[in-house]
Amino acid sequence: MTNFTLILDFNTNIPLYEQLYQYITTEIKSGNLRPNEKLPSKRSLANHLGVSQNTVIAAYDMLIDEGYLVSKERSGFYVSPLDANAFPAIPDIKLPTPTTSNNPLPTKYKYDFNTNLVDTTFFPYKTWTKITKDIMYNDPTLLNHGDPQGDECLRDELAKYLHEFRGVNCKPSQIIIGAGIEYLLGIIFHILGKSSFAFENPGYYKTYKIAQNNNVPVNLIELDDEGMSVTKLSASKSSVAYITPSHQFPMGIIMPIKRRLELLKWANESLDRFIIEDDYDSEFRFNGRPIPSLQGIDNHNKVIYLSTFSKSIAPSIRIAYMVLPEQLLDIYKRDFHYYSSTVSRFEQNCLYQFIRDGHFSRHINRMRNIYRSRKDKLIAELKVLPNQDKIEIVGENAGLHLLLKIKNGMTELSLLESAKKVGIKLYGLSNYFIDGNPTIDNTVVLGFSNIEIDDIAVAVKLLNNVWFTNNTSK
Amino acid sequence: MTNFTLILDFNTNIPLYEQLYQYITTEIKSGNLRPNEKLPSKRSLANHLGVSQNTVIAAYDMLIDEGYLVSKERSGFYVSPLDANAFPAIPDIKLPTPTTSNNPLPTKYKYDFNTNLVDTTFFPYKTWTKITKDIMYNDPTLLNHGDPQGDECLRDELAKYLHEFRGVNCKPSQIIIGAGIEYLLGIIFHILGKSSFAFENPGYYKTYKIAQNNNVPVNLIELDDEGMSVTKLSASKSSVAYITPSHQFPMGIIMPIKRRLELLKWANESLDRFIIEDDYDSEFRFNGRPIPSLQGIDNHNKVIYLSTFSKSIAPSIRIAYMVLPEQLLDIYKRDFHYYSSTVSRFEQNCLYQFIRDGHFSRHINRMRNIYRSRKDKLIAELKVLPNQDKIEIVGENAGLHLLLKIKNGMTELSLLESAKKVGIKLYGLSNYFIDGNPTIDNTVVLGFSNIEIDDIAVAVKLLNNVWFTNNTSK
Repeated sequence: MTNFTLILDFNTNIPLYEQLYQYITTEIKSGNLRPNEKLPSKRSLANHLGVSQNTVIAAYDMLIDEGYLVSKERSGFYVSPLDANAFPAIPDIKLPTPTTSNNPLPTKYKYDFNTNLVDTTFFPYKTWTKITKDIMYNDPTLLNHGDPQGDECLRDELAKYLHEFRGVNCKPSQIIIGAGIEYLLGIIFHILGKSSFAFENPGYYKTYKIAQNNNVPVNLIELDDEGMSVTKLSASKSSVAYITPSHQFPMGIIMPIKRRLELLKWANESLDRFIIEDDYDSEFRFNGRPIPSLQGIDNHNKVIYLSTFSKSIAPSIRIAYMVLPEQLLDIYKRDFHYYSSTVSRFEQNCLYQFIRDGHFSRHINRMRNIYRSRKDKLIAELKVLPNQDKIEIVGENAGLHLLLKIKNGMTELSLLESAKKVGIKLYGLSNYFIDGNPTIDNTVVLGFSNIEIDDIAVAVKLLNNVWFTNNTSK
Repeated sequence: MTNFTLILDFNTNIPLYEQLYQYITTEIKSGNLRPNEKLPSKRSLANHLGVSQNTVIAAYDMLIDEGYLVSKERSGFYVSPLDANAFPAIPDIKLPTPTTSNNPLPTKYKYDFNTNLVDTTFFPYKTWTKITKDIMYNDPTLLNHGDPQGDECLRDELAKYLHEFRGVNCKPSQIIIGAGIEYLLGIIFHILGKSSFAFENPGYYKTYKIAQNNNVPVNLIELDDEGMSVTKLSASKSSVAYITPSHQFPMGIIMPIKRRLELLKWANESLDRFIIEDDYDSEFRFNGRPIPSLQGIDNHNKVIYLSTFSKSIAPSIRIAYMVLPEQLLDIYKRDFHYYSSTVSRFEQNCLYQFIRDGHFSRHINRMRNIYRSRKDKLIAELKVLPNQDKIEIVGENAGLHLLLKIKNGMTELSLLESAKKVGIKLYGLSNYFIDGNPTIDNTVVLGFSNIEIDDIAVAVKLLNNVWFTNNTSK
């Protein structure tokens, strides 16, 4: 008992039993309390410390549970036979300090032509919050686990939507909802096993990276004017083609029906061939209705349809989905039956009601008009610049970005650097050449979804100044 | 022009240009419009159909974009040289009907001792909804992409919480937030590459399944009274041990400090060895504060700490997280830099404020009290049953489930079946023997987190009736 030099602090938030627990573990770790040493009885320790017996009981119970002490019936409490030297030196415990980034402060840009941003001004906050609230109060069962493929109500609604607006033919049971295409692609790579995958080049670096992380063999296929070349695809011996036919990323090509048919024919030539159709921004076609999906003209179950709400609602709403052909569904069910859905059921059900009650269609229509005005304005401003022979607009027939080729002799890097000087963040096409060998060095990718219409004229004028007025090229 | 037998429907919601578009694609697909056939001029078709030229222009533009038509300057519009036979037979398009399950209606249970349910009555709806609303209105930037590891504010708050309540030592930069442990384990398996993994047996079937899906070599390690045996672990030649030391799932063992130290010693013997500590329900210890984490006594960066809010908040809130040792963080950053976080930023930020403002601590305290009363009641009811020599309670010192061994001669299957007859859903321990070779055949796993306290006495009496009164065993 003389060993117990502990002074309890009655004025802190730390409960007394915990102070006692801490004290005894420290004494054991430091070797002051030796293996097999007997501890005071609960009553005598309580008297010694001037606390209730319950306090000592609580501390002793914890120590027994965790193996620091053993209780011997009718005898008392003993230190477990532990080697004090076996305890790692107690780490230097620091309370974490708020993260401070080591990176220099980012340049402050006035205009950012990032393809990955949406204009958050127009998010339907009121509706979304109202639905969220209703859901939370009305359906407590949503707090428990849901269907691994995603809640049935949302899949039913999605199947209807996809049929009506994208021409996709599927049953709700073919739909799998997941938190982003990264996650869904991981499932696809698993299901398709040892296939080798053909990716568009230039293309979507992220999906290529995901394939690499999944140890999937990848062939990069050059594009021609119609998208992925079937000749080159065949020559690559790939069995799965990952394509963005509605609006090739980043080239903006709408794959013509002829090429679509050729690709379906290619897929039909062998049982193990499939096409992954990534329909990432297909809601945004500005002349006429969205381009019907490739999935909808396939009747041999060869197309895995993949899409997301990142562009149509917001990137931070992590809801993507895929439509699996029936014959792949069995493998999915066999191997992913045990997985929980990666999407919060609150958000799944919010999205379900958002679509069901027509809010989604209205939101898309509204955003389509807003984005159309921006695109039209951007093109109009570009078309009235003086050096028309040195400016070429590419891939502007759908989607939320277009390409701008600048033939003033500047390299891509100098185009970007000069834009940066006037506060404009641009992205070079070379980034999208997945193999790092860009064949084009004078083209920038302009995402216009987060540039306000009133800023467009100013931004274009600034670009014109740095590219055509202030530079020395011919 | 005589070919154009289209009758436009002016009384539908389908826009006229779209009806025209549909008509022409169908004519091309069916071969009625032949390759290279010239189409009527915009003006004459508009006159013929009695519509404005804009309608025809919109339809022709769509058809050109999609490659059905080509426009030849100063000549007109022609059908593309497509082979009508190349079109797949048009699929039989059916509007999806609501999914109806083929499974027979599930038995209606009165009481479900599932370990995977939480009591949703006590979810802090009001606070959660209020925070959600505040967030949506106050920070529109949350709609755009966030940090791939999870938002910094949440990681800062988690690091503090983990230090204070779980004894975990980490910087916010070591934390990775993800939508469920399935997703995070996928990352761990990738980072640890060709390691072979030791799993507890009996153990968590789901994590084993995830390992299989990731093609990871797995060794199943038998448990002794203290958890995973280090001797058997060493013999297995595994390099990574996946354990649940705070409350072994399903056996309920609290790993004693001696075994913890042995495991850390084992991990330190080779550079490629690591321990994955899954702390899935550690908030719920009922005598004293939660058992400190293994991560906190490791000072060689050998422990990957993994946990989730499934038990502490709700299974449908898909927020889990892991703490990576610094030396693994580089690989993570190299390979997952391009991935978006799988968790909605709304929910990340809601959780952040929920923890920051003390709601989480209060919620945990409240739930701990509720679950403690249920556990105490369950044990008390079991302890007054007449056949005490035939009942053994195991693993009741922490967490949200306990094991009940019934030594009345009945097999597990008959224990479950007889419970089912009186409306009680029980789960057999044999399910958790991952290799399918259970060594125990008379034990059920009782999750008590979703059984109301007033139901416990009734449920226990019902079980006593079917197990001890109505059966013929000794």
